[in-house]
Amino acid sequence: MTTTTTNGPRLWATLTEMAKIGATPKGGVRRLALTTEDIRARDLFTKWCKEAALTIRIDEIGNLFARREGIQKNAKAVLIGSHLDTQPEGGRFDGVYGVLAALEVVRTLNDHNITTEKPIEIVSWTNEEGARFTPAMLGSAVFVGATPLNAALETKDAQGITLHEALEQSGYAGTRGSGLTNVDAYFEAHIEQGPILESHGNPIGVVTGGQAIRWLDVEVTGIAAHAGTTPMPYRKDALFASAEMALELEAISRRFAPLGLVTIGQVDVPNSSRNTIAGRVVFTVDLRHPDDTRIDAMEREVREAFEQIAEHRGVQTKISTYWKSPATPFDKTCVTLVENATKALGYAYERIVSGAGHDAIHLARHVPTAMVFIPCVDGLSHNEAEDALPEDVTCGANVLINAVLARAVIGVAVDA
Amino acid sequence: MTTTTTNGPRLWATLTEMAKIGATPKGGVRRLALTTEDIRARDLFTKWCKEAALTIRIDEIGNLFARREGIQKNAKAVLIGSHLDTQPEGGRFDGVYGVLAALEVVRTLNDHNITTEKPIEIVSWTNEEGARFTPAMLGSAVFVGATPLNAALETKDAQGITLHEALEQSGYAGTRGSGLTNVDAYFEAHIEQGPILESHGNPIGVVTGGQAIRWLDVEVTGIAAHAGTTPMPYRKDALFASAEMALELEAISRRFAPLGLVTIGQVDVPNSSRNTIAGRVVFTVDLRHPDDTRIDAMEREVREAFEQIAEHRGVQTKISTYWKSPATPFDKTCVTLVENATKALGYAYERIVSGAGHDAIHLARHVPTAMVFIPCVDGLSHNEAEDALPEDVTCGANVLINAVLARAVIGVAVDA
Repeated sequence: MTTTTTNGPRLWATLTEMAKIGATPKGGVRRLALTTEDIRARDLFTKWCKEAALTIRIDEIGNLFARREGIQKNAKAVLIGSHLDTQPEGGRFDGVYGVLAALEVVRTLNDHNITTEKPIEIVSWTNEEGARFTPAMLGSAVFVGATPLNAALETKDAQGITLHEALEQSGYAGTRGSGLTNVDAYFEAHIEQGPILESHGNPIGVVTGGQAIRWLDVEVTGIAAHAGTTPMPYRKDALFASAEMALELEAISRRFAPLGLVTIGQVDVPNSSRNTIAGRVVFTVDLRHPDDTRIDAMEREVREAFEQIAEHRGVQTKISTYWKSPATPFDKTCVTLVENATKALGYAYERIVSGAGHDAIHLARHVPTAMVFIPCVDGLSHNEAEDALPEDVTCGANVLINAVLARAVIGVAVDA
Repeated sequence: MTTTTTNGPRLWATLTEMAKIGATPKGGVRRLALTTEDIRARDLFTKWCKEAALTIRIDEIGNLFARREGIQKNAKAVLIGSHLDTQPEGGRFDGVYGVLAALEVVRTLNDHNITTEKPIEIVSWTNEEGARFTPAMLGSAVFVGATPLNAALETKDAQGITLHEALEQSGYAGTRGSGLTNVDAYFEAHIEQGPILESHGNPIGVVTGGQAIRWLDVEVTGIAAHAGTTPMPYRKDALFASAEMALELEAISRRFAPLGLVTIGQVDVPNSSRNTIAGRVVFTVDLRHPDDTRIDAMEREVREAFEQIAEHRGVQTKISTYWKSPATPFDKTCVTLVENATKALGYAYERIVSGAGHDAIHLARHVPTAMVFIPCVDGLSHNEAEDALPEDVTCGANVLINAVLARAVIGVAVDA
């Protein structure tokens, strides 16, 4: 397999230029969806796309598409992209790397006058981070029909501004396009946002899919009582019961190692006081596993364990499912295209599951999808210190262009 | 030993009458220090004292004294009492029982024309609960010199009103008296505020002293990270570390059973989010033991255990002592007077340590002191459902009068 390589220094310079928009003193980026900074980023990206002879189209939720025609005018497009918005204290790579790597793909095709049978479209999805409007990945959710357009447009930010108002003011409110029916496949390049690739010394992660997520709310009810007058055997202490549940949860994760993940992110002792035995404790549980059957088993073990602990301690427990998201395996063919491209380029890699949410997860439920991960320094993301190495940034773009070309099929235009 | 017995129905009726002041719909009492309700309670108590021919004196922090002269005019007084203020959702017995049992002691002495060598003074301490002004037990703290008068007077309630202003407005601001130098001994009757006496079927607890208390602040610092992208072995999870510390704390309490008590009343995960591994957890530890040497050992074991857990989990822990209070053994002679009175009356009893704070703890550090506990229903206190049985209420008053008479010494007035 012959390979095409992108212009790494150009991509790095483009990333650096874009990182000036919303740059923070600590070296990060603050570019919340549809704020002035995001609009400036969209303007700059649009300018670059036009310079690359791409045709811009904006859909009704503000997703931005930049099209490079294929030889077959009516063929479905190979979509590549990610998002330009960031967390409030975000970094210079999360999202924007996938958009600008896609731009670099097109620029490289232009450099070499490479034509493809299928059209190629770059996409920048609206409000991926969920930092201004919730939920996250809203633009891609509307695109695939997972969230109704009207519901998305009515979403308000913390100041009460609707997404609809923000879109109208931004100048990036567009019209309904052909949507999913126009998409042949979707590829997204992204920083890993975790420590695995870096620790293994692999510049490329071939992403096999998104893991299943379960969010549980747990309430433990004992009896509030005086810390000084209640002998230990008389107590129904919701706090110690919760602590035992936490450690049992951790033990369960070991039985599902290495892919099962468990987290207690939030804990609250309502009406707490230093010298009162906790009568009620509420906490969250986040369960993750790439396999739906295994996460079912995890949840079952968690529920059984918590109920047993509650029973032997004489407290009550109520476990409710707050949210669940199934595992999203990526398209085997597209994943193989990414893997083959990586091999052909001679890069060290591993197959990896996406731990975080991505627009690609929405797309994967409807069209053939795959992702390319590159390492981020110290596994840091959603952090102003977020960083990636120039050589990894180049590797990712090179994998992306070869996977995309394999899917879009290099051809010779009849009129070329 | 011949015994004197009080008028149980009269005491019960007196308690019932007083419980109307600040009565809550749920059957409790809301009578915060120096509010309208507390002032009405003081007025009623003062009226009853005057009817019992007692001499009223108020000191500079509003502590209310009602004196029955002894045969020896210059002898130090035997002080008996407790407090009239309550928690915001308090009960009909906490504090007020000790004050009105003392009144019943005097009424009974009057009924039988019993004179004593030493004077007897009833006291109602200001702001025992600490629910309006902090800290708790402020009136007795000022009386014994543990808290400077000016500092106490400058204490503000939640509305910014100083204790000084509240006192002046109440009409219960008095003048400095002879204080401790006038006190021969102090006796306080109180509901147990715990479940021990009730569960053992004992109407009387002979209180041997107050336990030592240590309040620790614990901070556990790990690394906040993404719940979906961080493999379990890479985590520095402050929450699971804290849970292990909690269970180890509970295990330590078993090594100091039955007197060692441990409580984690408050837990906070700052800047928490459901899908973020806890980077920092702060929690409180309340340690109690009646023996200073043993609580020292408890604290040492807790610190060592927490530091070991932090070390093997790769997190940091900072443990600081927020407050400590030494064990306060009561005067052996006074405790024996209470025990002898109980035996002479033929009541079932046990020796018991006071788990809660009481004005008697302050007094005990300066003058011979003892307490009498009676059971409270279901061990409930600081609760509108707080209750006590009429027969136990009577038993407590009977023990009190006989202990007081033993100390004040029945005599025949030369002019009688």
